[in-house]
Amino acid sequence: MAIRHFLSTQDWSRTELDALLARAAQFKKEKLGDELKGKAVALLFFNPSMRTRTSFELGAFQLGGHAVVLQPGKDAWPIEFDAGTVMDGEAEEHIAEVARVLSRYADLIGVRAFPKFKDWAVDREDRVIHSFAKYATVPVINMETITHPMQELAHILALQQHFGTTDLRGKKYVLTWTYHPKPLNTAVANSALQIATRYGMDVTLLCPTPEYALDRRYLDFAKQNVAENGGGFAISHDPDAAYRGADVVYAKSWGALPYFGKWENEKPIRDAHKHFIVDERKMALTNHGVFSHCLPLRRNVKATDAVMDSPACIAIEEAENRLHVQKAVMAALARQ
Amino acid sequence: MAIRHFLSTQDWSRTELDALLARAAQFKKEKLGDELKGKAVALLFFNPSMRTRTSFELGAFQLGGHAVVLQPGKDAWPIEFDAGTVMDGEAEEHIAEVARVLSRYADLIGVRAFPKFKDWAVDREDRVIHSFAKYATVPVINMETITHPMQELAHILALQQHFGTTDLRGKKYVLTWTYHPKPLNTAVANSALQIATRYGMDVTLLCPTPEYALDRRYLDFAKQNVAENGGGFAISHDPDAAYRGADVVYAKSWGALPYFGKWENEKPIRDAHKHFIVDERKMALTNHGVFSHCLPLRRNVKATDAVMDSPACIAIEEAENRLHVQKAVMAALARQ
Amino acid sequence: MAIRHFLSTQDWSRTELDALLARAAQFKKEKLGDELKGKAVALLFFNPSMRTRTSFELGAFQLGGHAVVLQPGKDAWPIEFDAGTVMDGEAEEHIAEVARVLSRYADLIGVRAFPKFKDWAVDREDRVIHSFAKYATVPVINMETITHPMQELAHILALQQHFGTTDLRGKKYVLTWTYHPKPLNTAVANSALQIATRYGMDVTLLCPTPEYALDRRYLDFAKQNVAENGGGFAISHDPDAAYRGADVVYAKSWGALPYFGKWENEKPIRDAHKHFIVDERKMALTNHGVFSHCLPLRRNVKATDAVMDSPACIAIEEAENRLHVQKAVMAALARQ
Repeated sequence: MAIRHFLSTQDWSRTELDALLARAAQFKKEKLGDELKGKAVALLFFNPSMRTRTSFELGAFQLGGHAVVLQPGKDAWPIEFDAGTVMDGEAEEHIAEVARVLSRYADLIGVRAFPKFKDWAVDREDRVIHSFAKYATVPVINMETITHPMQELAHILALQQHFGTTDLRGKKYVLTWTYHPKPLNTAVANSALQIATRYGMDVTLLCPTPEYALDRRYLDFAKQNVAENGGGFAISHDPDAAYRGADVVYAKSWGALPYFGKWENEKPIRDAHKHFIVDERKMALTNHGVFSHCLPLRRNVKATDAVMDSPACIAIEEAENRLHVQKAVMAALARQ
Repeated sequence: MAIRHFLSTQDWSRTELDALLARAAQFKKEKLGDELKGKAVALLFFNPSMRTRTSFELGAFQLGGHAVVLQPGKDAWPIEFDAGTVMDGEAEEHIAEVARVLSRYADLIGVRAFPKFKDWAVDREDRVIHSFAKYATVPVINMETITHPMQELAHILALQQHFGTTDLRGKKYVLTWTYHPKPLNTAVANSALQIATRYGMDVTLLCPTPEYALDRRYLDFAKQNVAENGGGFAISHDPDAAYRGADVVYAKSWGALPYFGKWENEKPIRDAHKHFIVDERKMALTNHGVFSHCLPLRRNVKATDAVMDSPACIAIEEAENRLHVQKAVMAALARQ
Repeated sequence: MAIRHFLSTQDWSRTELDALLARAAQFKKEKLGDELKGKAVALLFFNPSMRTRTSFELGAFQLGGHAVVLQPGKDAWPIEFDAGTVMDGEAEEHIAEVARVLSRYADLIGVRAFPKFKDWAVDREDRVIHSFAKYATVPVINMETITHPMQELAHILALQQHFGTTDLRGKKYVLTWTYHPKPLNTAVANSALQIATRYGMDVTLLCPTPEYALDRRYLDFAKQNVAENGGGFAISHDPDAAYRGADVVYAKSWGALPYFGKWENEKPIRDAHKHFIVDERKMALTNHGVFSHCLPLRRNVKATDAVMDSPACIAIEEAENRLHVQKAVMAALARQ
């Protein structure tokens, strides 16, 4: 039987996602369990992490397991991902061996691998995690690559708990781009589009110019999700119009894909849209809207102190939920 | 109810400190317990560590808990500590979010954050740990900032065990500056002054010149402690006079505060006092005195091999005690 | 009573090694145990690691213990190994204190310390691990220095399981040098010689020129082992002759000792022997031979994809065995 990985929420049915969220809500009430008793999780970080690493490591512990944290290229050997190459460069070993060996040691493998930010045509293939999934003989979990499915689940759980219902259909949901001095990963933006449409919300992608619209793959997922689950999907470049009447404002900064790897050309556009910051004036246009962000967040750049410290902000709740949803996912995958 | 942190021994009563030391002495005999069963400790290291990290991590394990070790700016995101700033520099997130999120994952937070060594007026505010204490919703433990309270407890426990009594009143205690090629943190020196006077010892601060006297705050604590607990406090620049008749010699190197951030001007004074090294000749002047140091220690720079390898040296015992006192502190704080 | 360390398989009798391998084979069937319940292992990595770190950390967990991973000079203080020096250089503390303090916290200490690659006369003394063994008051385990005993045990277990017998006497065993762009450690080559002769195999050391023969110490061990256990030992520079009829091909790259620290002079010889790569043509000369490597391995440099992905390759099995043999070793040492 094929191994079931957790690479994208799009690979999991709504019924399955609902069951994971329900289990996560239970873990939020009763944190200890034995679902991973004596089991091991290997967490590979190709990029920094605070929440992800802490919540996976503690989640494994709380379920009786143990997580090993590896940073390839820093405390472990650099890895080759191309097949068939003559490995005479920097990489000391091939993903085939890394994934197969870790599968002998661990029951689950988590992978964080951001884009290289040089060529989106390459990065959009998400080669690192797909290579792990190809060679591993245990389930692989996406800890953020070009999507961030664990954040998606944590986000939906936070919204369900905020609104006091698991049914989010018809909520007016704004995913707003915000300024950040550097061009960032589109992962959480892609993920927000996917999961908000998956749960039947009426989604607006608010961004400075059409160039900030996301990769076609995720726009297509959004449209497909709308077709299957109701709700809506539109792109807007008008902050006031987008915020007006919103039930949910989710913020994220990302780099415009047409400028991928040529970021100096994007800088003037980016710099001209600092006013996309989430502030009290815009939030006042919403329908007593709730605000969230995946964190880390630069205060007074992406959102003002006033918004971050307001009761409308559920970013801390969403961050906490990472722990609960990841335990649900690990427990489900380890059961296979 | 306000959360009780462990930022300084000065915030804890002698009765409370005595209870912690008694509990630590018990842990030294019986290492395993369940005081942290299923609980989590987040340890944040802004600076390197060997003893602190090992002893906290193993202490949590021995009590049934789990410690997550984070190094912000290395494997986690760099953090902003100023309130109200526009975060367009290096920091990717604000302490408000870091402390709040970690409080959702962990039951205790330990913080190591040395001074920046540029401006003592800034460093003396000890902003990093106070920011954690401000925003965290779980207890915060000082793992060395500008004081080192865990070392204080380990030191006192080592002295109590060496002298075979918990009553250290009246012991002649010399805190001696020693040479080190670099200007070091005053934390352990501040701490030694605080705790030695707290336990009623007759304390001499031996240092090359008046410029090496410590920050007024700690001199004032020492005087206040003497007023409350008996004993004494004096400053000396004469090694032989200070060592003569001493029961305890505690060594540490530190940078002179008037030269803080302008270290090239301090170098000639520092270099002229290499003879402050703890050696057998000076130890022979003491009252069969015991020697200790917080470690790490440069042999034959701060103390000679002969002193380090003599029965009078209890530095290893003191280092071991870190484990025991930290377990007592974690157990006490997690009970809240 | 003297502490028993695990620095080299040569320090352990065949009966003892056989018992460790038998215990490892049991752990392979039943992974959980309580041999390290409440116990601690300190793992010190002076060099990167993936398999070693993961397998030791998880092995400790599976037996009820906990491993602390330290990287001196990175997240812990740099260490001085010379005795009697005036420590006014980079090192902040002496091995005497490091080993003694860690012995107070942990029940076992693992050390990985590769050569410095400047002067073999210095590196061959293996000073780092011998210093740990000298000062530690708990058992020390070699996690690869100038030999790699844990790999030896994993290798033998893999061969025993491949051949379906614990008796490997008389097997024709080829240890082949392979090309690698950098001069590597001789540790695994030294180890392969030691353990293959120890188990009575008929060993050929295949290398480009006589300059690639290993250090006299290991050649002497091989000869002594042959004298005691039967089998044979020869050096060859002819790949086809060496492969012909082989039962086992074990590959490793290493730097030629006469060029140690003057690697630019070795480069032309190294570059002229890329054809030592393990490929299907050479493997076809063997007696349906099995192939292995300690990993990490550069594909299509040390061995071809075809060999690595063939059923003859047991490198993944050998890597898995690291977990099992290390648990056997830790359990045996912790029992002392």
